[in-house]
Amino acid sequence: MKDPTRNPEEARNKGEALFALVKRLYPICRSITGNGVRETLQVIKEIIPIEIREVPSGTAVLDWNVPDEWNIRDAWIKGPDGRKIVDFQQSNLHIVSYSIPFRDTLSLVELKKHLFSLPDHPDWVPYRTSYYKETWGLCLAQRQLTSLPEGEYEVCVDSTLAPGSLTYGELLLPGLCADEVLISCHVCHPSLANDNLSGIAVATFLASQLAQRNRRYSYRFIFIPGTIGSITWLALNEHNIKNIRHGLILAGVGDTGAFHYKKTRNGDAYIDRLMLRVLRQTGRAHQVLDFEPYGYDERQFGSPGFNLPVGCLMRTPFGQYPEYHSSADDLRFVKPESLADTLDLLEQLVGTLEGETRYLNLNPRGEPQLGRRGLYDTLGGLSQTKQRQMAMLWLLNFSDGDHSLEDIADRSQLPAEELREVARVLEKNGLLKQLSSGG
Amino acid sequence: MKDPTRNPEEARNKGEALFALVKRLYPICRSITGNGVRETLQVIKEIIPIEIREVPSGTAVLDWNVPDEWNIRDAWIKGPDGRKIVDFQQSNLHIVSYSIPFRDTLSLVELKKHLFSLPDHPDWVPYRTSYYKETWGLCLAQRQLTSLPEGEYEVCVDSTLAPGSLTYGELLLPGLCADEVLISCHVCHPSLANDNLSGIAVATFLASQLAQRNRRYSYRFIFIPGTIGSITWLALNEHNIKNIRHGLILAGVGDTGAFHYKKTRNGDAYIDRLMLRVLRQTGRAHQVLDFEPYGYDERQFGSPGFNLPVGCLMRTPFGQYPEYHSSADDLRFVKPESLADTLDLLEQLVGTLEGETRYLNLNPRGEPQLGRRGLYDTLGGLSQTKQRQMAMLWLLNFSDGDHSLEDIADRSQLPAEELREVARVLEKNGLLKQLSSGG
Amino acid sequence: MKDPTRNPEEARNKGEALFALVKRLYPICRSITGNGVRETLQVIKEIIPIEIREVPSGTAVLDWNVPDEWNIRDAWIKGPDGRKIVDFQQSNLHIVSYSIPFRDTLSLVELKKHLFSLPDHPDWVPYRTSYYKETWGLCLAQRQLTSLPEGEYEVCVDSTLAPGSLTYGELLLPGLCADEVLISCHVCHPSLANDNLSGIAVATFLASQLAQRNRRYSYRFIFIPGTIGSITWLALNEHNIKNIRHGLILAGVGDTGAFHYKKTRNGDAYIDRLMLRVLRQTGRAHQVLDFEPYGYDERQFGSPGFNLPVGCLMRTPFGQYPEYHSSADDLRFVKPESLADTLDLLEQLVGTLEGETRYLNLNPRGEPQLGRRGLYDTLGGLSQTKQRQMAMLWLLNFSDGDHSLEDIADRSQLPAEELREVARVLEKNGLLKQLSSGG
Repeated sequence: MKDPTRNPEEARNKGEALFALVKRLYPICRSITGNGVRETLQVIKEIIPIEIREVPSGTAVLDWNVPDEWNIRDAWIKGPDGRKIVDFQQSNLHIVSYSIPFRDTLSLVELKKHLFSLPDHPDWVPYRTSYYKETWGLCLAQRQLTSLPEGEYEVCVDSTLAPGSLTYGELLLPGLCADEVLISCHVCHPSLANDNLSGIAVATFLASQLAQRNRRYSYRFIFIPGTIGSITWLALNEHNIKNIRHGLILAGVGDTGAFHYKKTRNGDAYIDRLMLRVLRQTGRAHQVLDFEPYGYDERQFGSPGFNLPVGCLMRTPFGQYPEYHSSADDLRFVKPESLADTLDLLEQLVGTLEGETRYLNLNPRGEPQLGRRGLYDTLGGLSQTKQRQMAMLWLLNFSDGDHSLEDIADRSQLPAEELREVARVLEKNGLLKQLSSGG
Repeated sequence: MKDPTRNPEEARNKGEALFALVKRLYPICRSITGNGVRETLQVIKEIIPIEIREVPSGTAVLDWNVPDEWNIRDAWIKGPDGRKIVDFQQSNLHIVSYSIPFRDTLSLVELKKHLFSLPDHPDWVPYRTSYYKETWGLCLAQRQLTSLPEGEYEVCVDSTLAPGSLTYGELLLPGLCADEVLISCHVCHPSLANDNLSGIAVATFLASQLAQRNRRYSYRFIFIPGTIGSITWLALNEHNIKNIRHGLILAGVGDTGAFHYKKTRNGDAYIDRLMLRVLRQTGRAHQVLDFEPYGYDERQFGSPGFNLPVGCLMRTPFGQYPEYHSSADDLRFVKPESLADTLDLLEQLVGTLEGETRYLNLNPRGEPQLGRRGLYDTLGGLSQTKQRQMAMLWLLNFSDGDHSLEDIADRSQLPAEELREVARVLEKNGLLKQLSSGG
Repeated sequence: MKDPTRNPEEARNKGEALFALVKRLYPICRSITGNGVRETLQVIKEIIPIEIREVPSGTAVLDWNVPDEWNIRDAWIKGPDGRKIVDFQQSNLHIVSYSIPFRDTLSLVELKKHLFSLPDHPDWVPYRTSYYKETWGLCLAQRQLTSLPEGEYEVCVDSTLAPGSLTYGELLLPGLCADEVLISCHVCHPSLANDNLSGIAVATFLASQLAQRNRRYSYRFIFIPGTIGSITWLALNEHNIKNIRHGLILAGVGDTGAFHYKKTRNGDAYIDRLMLRVLRQTGRAHQVLDFEPYGYDERQFGSPGFNLPVGCLMRTPFGQYPEYHSSADDLRFVKPESLADTLDLLEQLVGTLEGETRYLNLNPRGEPQLGRRGLYDTLGGLSQTKQRQMAMLWLLNFSDGDHSLEDIADRSQLPAEELREVARVLEKNGLLKQLSSGG
């Protein structure tokens, strides 16, 4: 898989395409159930052939039950002068997700019990949910909240909360072997760009690209509401999960921050080493976080009863940027270049994973005579050794059956691409034999 | 066990009580045998019901024999002018411990062969012993030594060294299980406050407090002379030592220095992790020392034939403060607050140890739905997660049978107290089951 | 083995002797075959009784064949004015090693295709070889190269390249047991002092000293051309190599830089721990390098089919000093003191290796009473503990069958020599028993 960043034009195009998807999905009011998720999945389905699955409300899933379906048509507050002062049509963040229907006139004191703002960021509207407690609420800027005059306020929450279903999307791209790579992202947040339209967009385009290539591994993409979505998916797919060899959550991958990779529960899974290898090799600034049971759906995949090797890729971690879960996580907060760079990283990751190989040195006693095969600088004594020749020596010495090419890359600090190329040359010369790989 | 330092008044009282014991024991002339030890143990017995044991001189104990008993009534030197210039009644450090009886008049030259001083600290009197070589000696300040005029000196050492016994104190506080925690301190030093009246006082008050509480573990306190005492105790208690699960030597714990914990011989015993956990969690400055076979009685407990998990708690390590083994290790060198703080630490250690628990997640596949059990904030989307909810997630994820609550505390960096509290809530809700603990 | 550096006179003598050998061998034009190697080995044979072996050209050795033998009588270039401007008689670096015979007159343009210089070091003559590609060339200073006028140049390369043999030297010093320590150095470089007359000289004198002492291990010294020499030796000695327990390459050990030890392929062989122990204990500045399959003959011994525990000792690593592979690696670049210090290090290494012992504490329960055996200071209470008594305590505590004396030395940070001495005292007193060692 070639590195798309090498072509600035292509990278720019890719960034624009990713951003365009984020922008298109941004206005939709998503929640853990409801038409917003369906609409979102339909857009994704224009790009990749996901299956859209509906799981009826009330279905028992592990320790949980699929909740009633929530939909929202409108919500507003009118001030004492009759003018709309808070309006869902302006921003879907104004409504607390899963608010039950409500229509009445309230005093300011009563109203305030249902209003939420961010005192530290007086101009931003917060994102709030109340999935499992039946109430209603509206969110607004602190500056607006504190300027509300005394008086009577008319409130309208035109929502429905009733039996329906939980909706999620799934795409399996079968490969030569049944071993799966699971890529998961949450689709339950309304107009929040980084969290997690960024993850949705990157996953969609990654799937699109993978669909067009030969695959050794099978890849399973799931677009699910957070927590209840992975709980539901795990409950319905217990027969599948034994195939999951490597997994990755994508969340908050469109901001300009450095990459943060949160390791799997065991902390030394192949995906951990692979991700760190690729981050390091591609020279990307990154930090590594130990697993903890708070965060995104790695909590569910990594619960002790499943303990799947699923890590989580973020840029700035959730809660570490002030815009997190507020109206400031908008289309200005995510950047086409950041989205493109995340996609590049994942393409490189997949490329590395797919290209994983082990070789066996067929001439393991002493170094083979590279010179007579035309593989070595014939004029010796140079102070500067060439990287290509170093690659040969590393491959020959460590192709003992125990080391993959990637292990050799890590240990030698030579680019895996170069090692692969050199390995092919050595193979052609009868010095290495490729071992049956992966599977 | 509540943290007594939270109440400044109580802490002050505790410090005063500890210091009062140190002060009361300070004048007594202790050695590895003799009435000074008996008198000391009688004072301790006023506070805790130790048994005072006598082991006859000549008793074979491992590679050793219990030595003859030494007692001292008086010792002095009179100068050429007939005035007492060195007087045991002024300070028991003036006599080299185990000095044999002597009475004669000597020239200054002859006398000096039996005098000991500290050239680097000309005003301090050193502490010296000669347990296993029959000789006599006196200690004095270097400033005095160098000012002695020529002339005849009358010397009196009114001691006895004769068959008797070695005396030590022991208290077993039985708990619900036979597993023992051994707390040991040496009682063989004369008027030295930090080394080791500090250890004696802290051990006594710790035992006093433990006697008043329910105990899961059994606690064995021994007040023994250094080296020969632990050798003797080990020889007489070989049938008991299989029960010792955790052990601790207390020595030099009353000065104002930071804590120093010397690890057990194996270096990764539970007491090691526990002590470091408690030191860290209570925010106390501390350093960790690897085991070495020099120091206090951890040498004997940790000899290869016993290899018991016994660590050693000190403040400033022996030999690292100039006052060590001199008259400057006096009542000004130990502080009530330091003594109280050491006792607090040990109470916290015991509290942690007693509270040790392992749980099993009864619902290990995915996270259980905390919300419907009223265990989770119903209004989601907060940027700030609450520590209590983090504790639930950590407990659920790592209660897999392999991790104790304390392991989880270490890994999560959450306070063990909070985890314990939260674990009880989860247990009540049928989500965790406590595994049989300790034993 | 006493530390020769303790005697400055002896050290100076040793340095002078080593340097004299370097100086004597310096003018000889060595290559991977030919009379230069034979002449060098004859000089070595004056000091130690090596066997000089000849392996016919064309002999199949592993993946290689022994090449034709190369000899050089003369080589020069005459300028347009008929004067010799480059002259092999002035420096054997002027001829590219393995240059085929040539005699002709060339234009400057044609000539330059066969000339080599070092643009970054305009006054130095580079070292070049062309073992496996039949060509000819001459090396000269860049300053001279750029000043050559247009015109006709007469070139003479009076060499022979014809079937003959590859020559190497070998000395086995048998010890009490068949286990071997392999010491190898390359003898294929012409007038380069550090690379590797330094290694040759140190190996020669180390062998000389070892020949005069009792040996528990057997020591095998090989003086071989680089790469093809070790390939040849391995091919001819497959039946021997099972005996090789520890191995060491000596290369570039005469400059003033700090020691660099490149670890064996496995990275934790006994020779690795031993070398680091000795470097550390003798207080020598050093750096540790991980194995990589580029460098000296550790590449061949450490190829996966042999995987012998062979490390490499250098001072400044090859390629990290500008003088490397140039005329500046001359007799001024190596220092008698550096050579002597390297030899000292190796003598200390061998001394440590030969002295390796394990003891068993015969009295493992508690400390034995050292005092009554006259092994302990009878006057206790000293603030300063004596190193000798510490050694006793460490030996007694860790002589549990699992720890060698050297392990104890490492852990206690006490000198192995002192521990050994003390162990003998304890053994005499019936406290330790020596376990069957090495073999």
